[in-house]
Amino acid sequence: MAAPVPIGAGELDRDTAVERRSPGLYEADLPTGWSAANGALHGGYLLALLGRTLGEQLPHPHPFTITAHYLTVSRPGPALIRAETVRTGRSLSTGTASLIQRDGDGNEVERVRVLASYGDLDELPDDVRTAAKPPETPPIEQCPGPEDAPDDGLVPPMPLHQRLRLRLDPATLGWAVGQPSGKGEARGWFALADGRDPDPLALLVAVDALPPTTFEMGFTGWVPTVELTAHVRALPAPGPLRVSVVTRNLAGGFLEEDAEVWDTADRLVAQARQLARVRLG
Amino acid sequence: MAAPVPIGAGELDRDTAVERRSPGLYEADLPTGWSAANGALHGGYLLALLGRTLGEQLPHPHPFTITAHYLTVSRPGPALIRAETVRTGRSLSTGTASLIQRDGDGNEVERVRVLASYGDLDELPDDVRTAAKPPETPPIEQCPGPEDAPDDGLVPPMPLHQRLRLRLDPATLGWAVGQPSGKGEARGWFALADGRDPDPLALLVAVDALPPTTFEMGFTGWVPTVELTAHVRALPAPGPLRVSVVTRNLAGGFLEEDAEVWDTADRLVAQARQLARVRLG
Repeated sequence: MAAPVPIGAGELDRDTAVERRSPGLYEADLPTGWSAANGALHGGYLLALLGRTLGEQLPHPHPFTITAHYLTVSRPGPALIRAETVRTGRSLSTGTASLIQRDGDGNEVERVRVLASYGDLDELPDDVRTAAKPPETPPIEQCPGPEDAPDDGLVPPMPLHQRLRLRLDPATLGWAVGQPSGKGEARGWFALADGRDPDPLALLVAVDALPPTTFEMGFTGWVPTVELTAHVRALPAPGPLRVSVVTRNLAGGFLEEDAEVWDTADRLVAQARQLARVRLG
Repeated sequence: MAAPVPIGAGELDRDTAVERRSPGLYEADLPTGWSAANGALHGGYLLALLGRTLGEQLPHPHPFTITAHYLTVSRPGPALIRAETVRTGRSLSTGTASLIQRDGDGNEVERVRVLASYGDLDELPDDVRTAAKPPETPPIEQCPGPEDAPDDGLVPPMPLHQRLRLRLDPATLGWAVGQPSGKGEARGWFALADGRDPDPLALLVAVDALPPTTFEMGFTGWVPTVELTAHVRALPAPGPLRVSVVTRNLAGGFLEEDAEVWDTADRLVAQARQLARVRLG
């Protein structure tokens, strides 16, 4: 077995690297490797990109709470990031960042706007009082991945799947065989494909990595995220993460997706909620 | 019985009024009526204030998803609001707003930063597919209010309680009689004291109006909000709202509070999550 890729030296680290041009202005070249079937870059990857930039902009290293509004579709290629420090405190600092690309006419178009507060997870006390329980997920070897999907167009191959090792709970995969359960849920295992262990950046990818819960509710269309807020609650232990996503309320063409991420030490390391749109009927 | 106060003519409407000085610049004089025992203005009121300002700034009327980061303590008195339109789309528009006050030396200090996407709830289709159920809340007349609390300092009188009609489920009031249940929950009824019916602005107050869930977990200290995100999912029907707040994970001195708001038509009209701090031990 190959030596594990250390945090900082993996594909995610390489592909979220930004170059500081001047105070608050960063440049990046967004790779195709994190795009989905339609060529759009993955929302969790974009969150990690902007989350990393804010980690360089702010005096604290870790996103405690980060909100992204997805404005227009981000594509591979050159991008600018404008970051602003809103407030610096002793234990928390707050900042905002914008991802910008140019359209065909060379005009700047904002893709994503982020607002976040950062702290240092290493400095938190160890106290945990939780009523939350890890999701009951079958062993990873009993969970199929996207590469096991039939070649029927339901799960089109996408570059993103080369970057992630997703293994999905068969109980939430009815949609893949034409039998959606009707329950708005998705569960599975998440790891980075190169074996790099999880950190807060990886958690920002994980909270948006599973298939949309609407698939099990019988909808097949794209489910674009309007807004996603992630709370990183602890540094994850090494090893694959378990992710559980639940939708309770689909109404008026919008739904929430509530994600939990658990580490191998059975600790709830991230919570996230997104508001997404779905084309009804 | 007095005629009901119409939406637009209530205390909340009066107290969230802002005056536009120039494009994107608004002035307000924040009243003492929405402050808590320590003199700090209530987080839900501040969310409604900034939410209303963004409703004037943006072409769409209703906050679909709004995130506030609470930076410093807001006090009654003069305030500036700087608002910026981030993007205007056909069905959604996105904006940001900052609440600013001056400190003792006359320097501007930012209190709250908000990022939100707005739409028009009237234009959404009626489809509802929900697995969510309203909280089991006893009839309103069986739920005590803050004015029924013993005069022992646990629930100090605060101006805010004159603006709201809160009625709390006795099952989540163990803390008030020295017997916290240990469960991180708070439930109750919420209405504006002047009888004005709820609208999206009132929902922004309601999502942060109940006592902190930490009281039932045995902590008595203040629980300042770091960040709160609210999703307004439907226009509420007239009448009092039911609010349910649950905390599952308290760790490292931080906790999430998940709030749901239900209207008299048993519709889930708002969901919110906040990240808050609590002093442990």
